[in-house]
Amino acid sequence: MSEESRSRSTSKSPLFTKEGEPNGCVMAVTNSNGVVQALLTDLYQITMAYAYWKSGKMDEPAVFDLYFRKNPFQGEFTIFAGLEECVKLLQTFHFSESDVAYLKSVLPATTDPGFFTYLRTLSAKEITLSAIPEGDVVFPKVPLITVTGPLAVAQLLETPLLNLVNYASLVATNAARFRLAAGPEKILLEFGLRRAQGPDGGLSASRYCYLGGFDGSSNVLAGKMFGIPVKGTHAHAYVTSFVSLDEIQDKMLTTVDGQKEVDFVSLCKKYSLELAEVLDYLPDQIMEGELAAFLSYAKAFPQSFLALIDTYDVIKSGLPNFCAVAMALSDLGYRPQGVRLDSGDLSYLSNYVHSKFCKVAAKYNLPWFEKMTIVASNDINEETIHSLNQQGHTISCYGIGTHLVTCQKQPALGCVFKLVEVNGKARIKLSEDVEKVTVPGKKNVFRLYGTDGTALVDLLQQVSEPPPKKGQRVLCRHPIQESKRAYVIPAEVKCLHEVYWEKGEVRKPLPTLTELRAKASESLAALRQDHKRTLNPTPYKVSVSSALYTFIHELWLESAPIGELS
Amino acid sequence: MSEESRSRSTSKSPLFTKEGEPNGCVMAVTNSNGVVQALLTDLYQITMAYAYWKSGKMDEPAVFDLYFRKNPFQGEFTIFAGLEECVKLLQTFHFSESDVAYLKSVLPATTDPGFFTYLRTLSAKEITLSAIPEGDVVFPKVPLITVTGPLAVAQLLETPLLNLVNYASLVATNAARFRLAAGPEKILLEFGLRRAQGPDGGLSASRYCYLGGFDGSSNVLAGKMFGIPVKGTHAHAYVTSFVSLDEIQDKMLTTVDGQKEVDFVSLCKKYSLELAEVLDYLPDQIMEGELAAFLSYAKAFPQSFLALIDTYDVIKSGLPNFCAVAMALSDLGYRPQGVRLDSGDLSYLSNYVHSKFCKVAAKYNLPWFEKMTIVASNDINEETIHSLNQQGHTISCYGIGTHLVTCQKQPALGCVFKLVEVNGKARIKLSEDVEKVTVPGKKNVFRLYGTDGTALVDLLQQVSEPPPKKGQRVLCRHPIQESKRAYVIPAEVKCLHEVYWEKGEVRKPLPTLTELRAKASESLAALRQDHKRTLNPTPYKVSVSSALYTFIHELWLESAPIGELS
Repeated sequence: MSEESRSRSTSKSPLFTKEGEPNGCVMAVTNSNGVVQALLTDLYQITMAYAYWKSGKMDEPAVFDLYFRKNPFQGEFTIFAGLEECVKLLQTFHFSESDVAYLKSVLPATTDPGFFTYLRTLSAKEITLSAIPEGDVVFPKVPLITVTGPLAVAQLLETPLLNLVNYASLVATNAARFRLAAGPEKILLEFGLRRAQGPDGGLSASRYCYLGGFDGSSNVLAGKMFGIPVKGTHAHAYVTSFVSLDEIQDKMLTTVDGQKEVDFVSLCKKYSLELAEVLDYLPDQIMEGELAAFLSYAKAFPQSFLALIDTYDVIKSGLPNFCAVAMALSDLGYRPQGVRLDSGDLSYLSNYVHSKFCKVAAKYNLPWFEKMTIVASNDINEETIHSLNQQGHTISCYGIGTHLVTCQKQPALGCVFKLVEVNGKARIKLSEDVEKVTVPGKKNVFRLYGTDGTALVDLLQQVSEPPPKKGQRVLCRHPIQESKRAYVIPAEVKCLHEVYWEKGEVRKPLPTLTELRAKASESLAALRQDHKRTLNPTPYKVSVSSALYTFIHELWLESAPIGELS
Repeated sequence: MSEESRSRSTSKSPLFTKEGEPNGCVMAVTNSNGVVQALLTDLYQITMAYAYWKSGKMDEPAVFDLYFRKNPFQGEFTIFAGLEECVKLLQTFHFSESDVAYLKSVLPATTDPGFFTYLRTLSAKEITLSAIPEGDVVFPKVPLITVTGPLAVAQLLETPLLNLVNYASLVATNAARFRLAAGPEKILLEFGLRRAQGPDGGLSASRYCYLGGFDGSSNVLAGKMFGIPVKGTHAHAYVTSFVSLDEIQDKMLTTVDGQKEVDFVSLCKKYSLELAEVLDYLPDQIMEGELAAFLSYAKAFPQSFLALIDTYDVIKSGLPNFCAVAMALSDLGYRPQGVRLDSGDLSYLSNYVHSKFCKVAAKYNLPWFEKMTIVASNDINEETIHSLNQQGHTISCYGIGTHLVTCQKQPALGCVFKLVEVNGKARIKLSEDVEKVTVPGKKNVFRLYGTDGTALVDLLQQVSEPPPKKGQRVLCRHPIQESKRAYVIPAEVKCLHEVYWEKGEVRKPLPTLTELRAKASESLAALRQDHKRTLNPTPYKVSVSSALYTFIHELWLESAPIGELS
């Protein structure tokens, strides 16, 4: 393409705004209630809305399905998240005067002014949103959300709904996978704020990692906004900011019972010498600045002292310094919490640290000393945890950042929003890739359970069909492959979709984040183990009824041009 | 770890907030001016601030460097972005009454109340921030930002500064790499909103992809907020929402000169039959709904008609329908824009489409017909573009989403924020991995240029050293490896850091986004080609002065315990 033609197509297109300065207003992505704005959308939603309006089709009743085609992380399950934010979007969905003014500047000058009047009146009042409950375990091709309502409004919701569901579900699933890898006993903390996609990326990460099974986050604003437990100790900078014990201005610390003031610095020094033999280190090789840092930190947090011990050398300095301060705290009646390791061989170091804790425990008859927390936090991913489990370790808590929040293994969940019905007529979207062909028409979704309470299969039906009944045989068919069929006799049948928004009102109470977290955990528990394993998990089956199978394939043939051999 | 001990360490730790409900307020991540809140930080920054305060060290003058250790995407350059947001953070940095109340609920009950009084008074007034200009090309180990000021305040800035720089620089660099792959002539559009990390992740992506060299975005809110050109056409849903030409209520379209109303539907039908021979298709195999959709879309956007042609079958239906509508528009004096391909073999299909455009151009003597835009938008990454270039194609515009905004190839840039000096004394952070050892002390950063205007090397010096002079020999040393040294005679010397924030005021005008975009492009142009190539690029050298080399290694030996052979 020549320079000339490029500048032509750029300048000629009325769909390009003028480059350069913003529209005279600084704004946030959300309104003052933290809800996403209607304008957070792709321009083609607006141009389509105009073309629908111009064609008189804007109010035709339409049905869109929001779903994904493949589970993330080479796994066979996904945790559905983001629904509450979707419902809140509907509550406030509208275009402000300044939005409309901006859109006027973007659309061609020939745009019918009536369209802007129409935009000003838009709301989600006539939209019905049904969905699988947030926190539920979900599978490919099953509509997570179904949006019913006027074609143009439903279409306009596509981008914000996808934005709100895609990352939320991806990161909740990632968190759930870390939980499965670590086991139910370990404490998992999300430490990803600094590596997330901007400020809100960090907040979403904290919120949905908690939903997916984490115990807390380092993100303070997430704690304030969502009630997530927040956790943290100190960084290497705190340690390197001290060079000598002389920096400790106030050497005293009061005992836990408040009865006595003790020279805490001298006590720590005493233990620093005394422990050398127990722990086998050279007292002249410990870093005095690190001891000063630990000691001062312990004075600030005597009830919850946890130190980062790898600034200089874990074995020669960090661990000895921690143990000296911990013993001094113990003498004053406090119970220190433990250590954090942020580098090195975590299996070896955690076992080393634990073995030394055991020695101190034995020497001073302090059984709790060997039970102290060992936090690990160095670039940990799911595989690291599996590998640590294989090698053996004594880590009791993981702090996980980058790999968790960026979902390094697969940083996007491919949710799509597809039109399946207009004016009561089903629509299909074909593709060279048969897996991408949509399941047309409005559907009901059922989950069939076996006698042991585990989920057997998800079944999509046309809405006109009677629902499957427990104890009665149901034919479940693969949506594409003719020969793949199975009879199922469900011990229990659950209709997965519930109406969350209708006639301008929220129709279901929205659970708290803690309730959603419990839901995710229960829902995963009802999934057979082989669907959840890391290596070659068994795909969970998503099927269609016999009637829906026939319907799909008839519509498919109607909509596909006949090929020619040549 | 037993269930008992886990519940103990969770409930006992005063650093855990109560689980469950948020703090009674719904809020946005940014304030009403779109600036990040001080509370968007890791809890350990707060606990460290308390420990600094408690130790009386909070006001000690400190210096922190923000830098990364490795260029992303197996490349050898990075575009620095996010600085404007960092400066704005400093302008508004404070803890509100409700922030302080929340922090009270999180910190141990024993926390000295004086600390909360102190928190209320905090601002960034005593902070000095110097930085490399935003948009500049930058390299590992070079401080992008240096923060000088009271230890506790500088420390508190760590997390938000990292959050604002890490993703911004990563995605701007990714965008620049796509630009290098596509070449300067192609139009690059960011389509990633639906796959980004939540709402703000999408906004950050749009903003910094534009900075990195993209031409526009689909994100309407980004257009409104940042003045980024917004672009878009229609989705598959628009096409599948039509089944028949009977749905076109108003069949008329006015000619471009406004002189005449023409039956546009009949004209399109005429061309649909007439073109069958020119383009070699079967008129009975085209999808009538698709023709109706294109036609109605053209009526809405006659000046900028661009159609998505792969809903059913590009060759048998999409392209024929587009050409029929395009010819009809042409008869009325309009100039259609082109087509979008969202699936299939993009090399083959773009060439096929272009060849058919050429046939129509020849048949009707309309030279512009063969120059129409071909947009490609199917899950494109950097490698796809290189591969398309090898195969040959006629794509003139790429719409890029997932791989661009999630930075699939490497979803995090590992910027760190390290303490390098306190009270005028340099600090070092050691590591088992020598590449992770920090460069201690406050430094000046220079870029040395060759006679051809390309950048030769970046040089870090101690602030006490005289700056290098052009035309004079300078010894540049590898910071770690003793034998790696080189003499450089720079033709030009640039001091990279400028002061952006000092004494509570912004000290440099902050460039507009368009200016930053030009800066990034110029800065990359001054980088030698071999640093920018995809395969095995040459690392750009970052060196230290002889004096700094000696200083690093002396401090290193002082701070490292001596090992024992055993």
